[in-house]
Amino acid sequence: GILERLNAGEIVIGDGGFVFALEKRGYVKAGPWTPEAAAEYPEAVRQLHREFLRAGANIMQTFTFYASDDKLENRGNKLSYTGAQINEAACDLAREVANEGDALVAGGVSQTPSYLSCKSGTEVKAIFKKQLDVFTKKNVDFLIAEYFEHVEEAVWAVEVLKETGKPVAASLCIGPEGDMHGVSPGECAVRLVKAGAQIVGVNCHFDPLTCVKTVKMMKEGVEKAGLKAHYMVQPLAFHTPDCNCQGFIDLPEFPFGLEPRILTRWDMHKYAREAYNAGIRFIGGCCGFEPYHIRAVAEELAPERGFLPAASEKHGVWGAGLEMHTKPWVRARARRDYWESLKPASGRPLCASLSSPDSWGVTRGDAELMQQKEATSKDQLKQLFDRSKTH
Amino acid sequence: GILERLNAGEIVIGDGGFVFALEKRGYVKAGPWTPEAAAEYPEAVRQLHREFLRAGANIMQTFTFYASDDKLENRGNKLSYTGAQINEAACDLAREVANEGDALVAGGVSQTPSYLSCKSGTEVKAIFKKQLDVFTKKNVDFLIAEYFEHVEEAVWAVEVLKETGKPVAASLCIGPEGDMHGVSPGECAVRLVKAGAQIVGVNCHFDPLTCVKTVKMMKEGVEKAGLKAHYMVQPLAFHTPDCNCQGFIDLPEFPFGLEPRILTRWDMHKYAREAYNAGIRFIGGCCGFEPYHIRAVAEELAPERGFLPAASEKHGVWGAGLEMHTKPWVRARARRDYWESLKPASGRPLCASLSSPDSWGVTRGDAELMQQKEATSKDQLKQLFDRSKTH
Amino acid sequence: GILERLNAGEIVIGDGGFVFALEKRGYVKAGPWTPEAAAEYPEAVRQLHREFLRAGANIMQTFTFYASDDKLENRGNKLSYTGAQINEAACDLAREVANEGDALVAGGVSQTPSYLSCKSGTEVKAIFKKQLDVFTKKNVDFLIAEYFEHVEEAVWAVEVLKETGKPVAASLCIGPEGDMHGVSPGECAVRLVKAGAQIVGVNCHFDPLTCVKTVKMMKEGVEKAGLKAHYMVQPLAFHTPDCNCQGFIDLPEFPFGLEPRILTRWDMHKYAREAYNAGIRFIGGCCGFEPYHIRAVAEELAPERGFLPAASEKHGVWGAGLEMHTKPWVRARARRDYWESLKPASGRPLCASLSSPDSWGVTRGDAELMQQKEATSKDQLKQLFDRSKTH
Amino acid sequence: GILERLNAGEIVIGDGGFVFALEKRGYVKAGPWTPEAAAEYPEAVRQLHREFLRAGANIMQTFTFYASDDKLENRGNKLSYTGAQINEAACDLAREVANEGDALVAGGVSQTPSYLSCKSGTEVKAIFKKQLDVFTKKNVDFLIAEYFEHVEEAVWAVEVLKETGKPVAASLCIGPEGDMHGVSPGECAVRLVKAGAQIVGVNCHFDPLTCVKTVKMMKEGVEKAGLKAHYMVQPLAFHTPDCNCQGFIDLPEFPFGLEPRILTRWDMHKYAREAYNAGIRFIGGCCGFEPYHIRAVAEELAPERGFLPAASEKHGVWGAGLEMHTKPWVRARARRDYWESLKPASGRPLCASLSSPDSWGVTRGDAELMQQKEATSKDQLKQLFDRSKTH
Repeated sequence: GILERLNAGEIVIGDGGFVFALEKRGYVKAGPWTPEAAAEYPEAVRQLHREFLRAGANIMQTFTFYASDDKLENRGNKLSYTGAQINEAACDLAREVANEGDALVAGGVSQTPSYLSCKSGTEVKAIFKKQLDVFTKKNVDFLIAEYFEHVEEAVWAVEVLKETGKPVAASLCIGPEGDMHGVSPGECAVRLVKAGAQIVGVNCHFDPLTCVKTVKMMKEGVEKAGLKAHYMVQPLAFHTPDCNCQGFIDLPEFPFGLEPRILTRWDMHKYAREAYNAGIRFIGGCCGFEPYHIRAVAEELAPERGFLPAASEKHGVWGAGLEMHTKPWVRARARRDYWESLKPASGRPLCASLSSPDSWGVTRGDAELMQQKEATSKDQLKQLFDRSKTH
Repeated sequence: GILERLNAGEIVIGDGGFVFALEKRGYVKAGPWTPEAAAEYPEAVRQLHREFLRAGANIMQTFTFYASDDKLENRGNKLSYTGAQINEAACDLAREVANEGDALVAGGVSQTPSYLSCKSGTEVKAIFKKQLDVFTKKNVDFLIAEYFEHVEEAVWAVEVLKETGKPVAASLCIGPEGDMHGVSPGECAVRLVKAGAQIVGVNCHFDPLTCVKTVKMMKEGVEKAGLKAHYMVQPLAFHTPDCNCQGFIDLPEFPFGLEPRILTRWDMHKYAREAYNAGIRFIGGCCGFEPYHIRAVAEELAPERGFLPAASEKHGVWGAGLEMHTKPWVRARARRDYWESLKPASGRPLCASLSSPDSWGVTRGDAELMQQKEATSKDQLKQLFDRSKTH
Repeated sequence: GILERLNAGEIVIGDGGFVFALEKRGYVKAGPWTPEAAAEYPEAVRQLHREFLRAGANIMQTFTFYASDDKLENRGNKLSYTGAQINEAACDLAREVANEGDALVAGGVSQTPSYLSCKSGTEVKAIFKKQLDVFTKKNVDFLIAEYFEHVEEAVWAVEVLKETGKPVAASLCIGPEGDMHGVSPGECAVRLVKAGAQIVGVNCHFDPLTCVKTVKMMKEGVEKAGLKAHYMVQPLAFHTPDCNCQGFIDLPEFPFGLEPRILTRWDMHKYAREAYNAGIRFIGGCCGFEPYHIRAVAEELAPERGFLPAASEKHGVWGAGLEMHTKPWVRARARRDYWESLKPASGRPLCASLSSPDSWGVTRGDAELMQQKEATSKDQLKQLFDRSKTH
Repeated sequence: GILERLNAGEIVIGDGGFVFALEKRGYVKAGPWTPEAAAEYPEAVRQLHREFLRAGANIMQTFTFYASDDKLENRGNKLSYTGAQINEAACDLAREVANEGDALVAGGVSQTPSYLSCKSGTEVKAIFKKQLDVFTKKNVDFLIAEYFEHVEEAVWAVEVLKETGKPVAASLCIGPEGDMHGVSPGECAVRLVKAGAQIVGVNCHFDPLTCVKTVKMMKEGVEKAGLKAHYMVQPLAFHTPDCNCQGFIDLPEFPFGLEPRILTRWDMHKYAREAYNAGIRFIGGCCGFEPYHIRAVAEELAPERGFLPAASEKHGVWGAGLEMHTKPWVRARARRDYWESLKPASGRPLCASLSSPDSWGVTRGDAELMQQKEATSKDQLKQLFDRSKTH
């Protein structure tokens, strides 16, 4: 079990981001980001699970992101698959691949449109429960409430998940400035632990070092409150030093121009080390993480874990594979300090290195407006939005 | 057949780069770059073929890059697979997926270590012939001699491939400055056409716009010589304005720090249009191309082709999928001019936008030296190299 | 008098940075930065005063930076001029030019090597007194204690300056993180006001927006303490978003590679407006400010002041002078929104946009070590330094 | 005389750019760029001459740029000074300062609006003659025809200047692509030499390395033609790798946002060495050159010249002045390799490193249109312009 591993001091490596990876492979639509591929194209989802397993992941998260019924409807799910079918297929795939190696299956729920449109705790909890029925039936190993911008909704999720008796992890998509209501990371963590989460942390929305910093603040909060928890981190694989509090969604490059921000494998080594040094033991990835990013995490922590991941058979440590290159100056790159100190160029001299985020400051309750789609230009949308905010 | 399609004025879309994509997925080792995965991990190779097919590719290239026997030995192939087994497995996978859609199978040979170490034409041709036996046995639809830095070796390859009676394409990895012996793109093309290639062009080593420019120079050369040919282009998916004549190999970021250079899907639209306008009709990709890059090529050329690729079911044209996003300012990005004019930031303010290439000017005949591996530091290697050059 | 002007709500415009401007003109040596040119090359110093006057400056600061006796000796003043002669010449030049227009003369003292080498308050105050004798004799209009990294020393300076009965301004070279002992900007300001300074603020070390932010924090501190003061700001004319708490000295570009960071005149418009909006009424410049930078400040605040500076006879507002350009696309630049939204390129694609500061964390008491000059390499110096810190 | 010096193999150092330097000091208006300050504010012009002299310049160019009568009228000269008065005052100032050191006075003429509006050779030559009368009367040491975009007009200027019997230098503002009519640098140089110029080269419009490259092409042309000449180069002090053939005028930053492109003194060392190695012996500067830039040229060439310039008394070689800095890590910068390898950051992470030039392709004969000033927006101007081009 996950708690046994963490209690024993083991490092648990998470998998990477399914919606982004499968969008690039042609199986997920950016915008709705729904996971019907689990039912539609199981071989593609299975293959991605397998690649993360080979890369060193100990956790197979069910590909059920945004698979709550309200979301699927909201995002135009006109498929021949019900939410239950999608969730079940996702569980089966995760279990099948987990059994091929040393991995656990985690069932995940995430924030709901219902919460944003101010539905009550009872209504929102009912949504979670529906997904949970599948996880219980399929007997996942533990549960993750992840990608919550508001700790209030995350607490509700934890309360529902706790009822199963399974271990519960809770992961917010916040940065050092806290949740969308301004609750600090430390306070968020305390509330989640008090609600029953045994593992707390953050995922998505910010780059690795920002996420590690945020989890550190959570840890300080929990320890200050005299509580105990395990910690997890599953950040973006994009550099986002220019984000505001709402994370990468507000960057002008989201989601179709993020390429220049993708982390190298060497950036991942730094991330893994920082996370480990911060006392985090459940270390994975979210949007942008490809299998080789997870492998880099596993390779950095190989001394602590005592072994390399399977996929390292196809990877020389710190570029050692280049020793076989035909060109001597490429062979000269087969060493750690070369890659550690490289500052990679973008090849884009007409582009700046940072952007200005694009946020209009939306919070809970703006959902009605958010559905407003008649406006065709950005300016019109902004006008509508501003008008609604002043009334 | 390929020639029927091209003669009819059809646009033929190639697939993307297997070694780079599979390296990131954990199945190819950077450095040797050999394709034993075709035999070892067929499901991974099959899945990638399938993704390119869904993305719109009409060509399934057999995953046989660097699979000549001399290369496999050279690069430390200590597997239980022979070169023949790898090449055969690659053919079977390509055919299997090609049959799932409207695609042809192309068998490919590429430059050999034998040529670089100054082996004779007879010896080098024998190498090609060995791979060719498999392609003939497996009855591929046509043949590509690709990734040649010296037109002399490419001509030898074409001469061998021609003997099969199948259509032959020839693709060099050169830029506007020509091949490693300084033969201009126009002259290279003329020699290849005279040797019997029906399709000529370039692949790898340079970014899309540089490659299109190079093929244009080839076309001018061929037309000036009163010859006729079809044209192909399969560039990198990396921005490389700072390359010297040897291409991206010499960039300090090669091969493990190229992320900031990855093209967006919108860059691919521009590429596809430029290639089309230049009169090129076989348009594909090489290293760095992921399925979504090929899909962007297919989407840009959908008006000319009359249909969208299968994977467009999971992609809104020009970001249209964002119309369903919950945040209005993200919905405001659901339009063509937004993405066309976006100048994406790298999120890396400590990195420059361009690099200085790292070449020491190696040419044919340096192969003995190139095997010199005792030198541990870059400086030592450079010394050895310089010493050998002055004697 | 200065206080009459400020009490009346007038905007007072300061001059720019003499040591940097005269270094570029060939009259000040970078490193020692001492102002012997006032005595040696009076025509050069006079001309610079005159240019700032024409640009709109209401304050002529005596060019007496680092002209305390201990500093002059320390920095190798082997000239035929004594400290008194230099200080007197500087006063005469400032007065001469001030009389050509509507300007006041301010005598300035700055931090001393004596303080850093842990001399007592009595000793340090004696240094200030010596410079002050000249200012009294020459009857400057008011006094500025400027460029102090430690508020403690600045308070000592204010105490000495107050004895003259003249108005006293106090300006630290700190950022939002406070002084070198960690005293916050707000607390620093309170101490200076309590010591008798009627005007408080910051100068040098950080870019305009950072300095304005710091002065805002000072203002909040003063107001919270129920005190009253006027505020001044005289920042760098360099962009320094990448500074640590010690400011631009620690940037690798200091002092001979700062060119790409120089603010445009349009940056100065933003600065002047921000400073004004923050309630600051003594607005000038420090290192890097050239006459045209001060003119931009004066032009931005012309609506509030009711007049343009003399040098605007040679400057079209917001680029209007370009209307007479021969090329129509240059004429098309003759408008405010063009220059306001321009993001100027560096023409340096091999350079990053930000640097990592280079500080080793020196504080008061490190002076002995600082004199250590035998070490020839940076590494040796660093070793010596680190050794001394651990003993 | 200038020819005696050059014939003897001496290095002759030019001065820097007066219009840009005096614009920043408040005495020249950007747009018209006319030099009435020579008469209006002689002390400011004299001081700048003196600074260049101290910096090492052997040539004092009369500050008569764009001081032809047609230009002065065109640009709205409504001063109480006639063209003759301005030209005479400029000669007196140059002579006065030249006599303070080892310098020659050069009288300069530059391209005329008359040429662009298609006036005849006779008319254009009459304009030059008028300025020339002053130079003859004031007995300058030699003459420079500089800042010509069309070699045709420059040849006319040389023909006029030759009549005085004084040595004549001819300097175009072109890059490697040649003049605005497409005449190559080599051919331009040949025509100028044949017209009687003893010294040929380029000034303005491009950065130092581009200018040196262009002069090299001129030299090759002249030598190929079996002719003989001396060579001069007086480039911008701005990095302009992104220019098109019309130079920095077309960069969006011209003229009020060029700061990030300013060369450091260390860039100037490289420039001086390159120019010297190319066989150029008259080495100076144009727009953007401040006295310290000329000093850097003189310091780089001190070994060849045998002495340092006067202003080096205030400058440690390669940063040696920093040895006296209080902070050890700043002292560690007091060495050549530090500054030679520094890649200075811009402090502007929201700005790109390169721009796209802004040219609409104007050539001779567009002058009427160019006077069209009613259009208020860039788009309107462009429309007008495009319309006129198609008729």
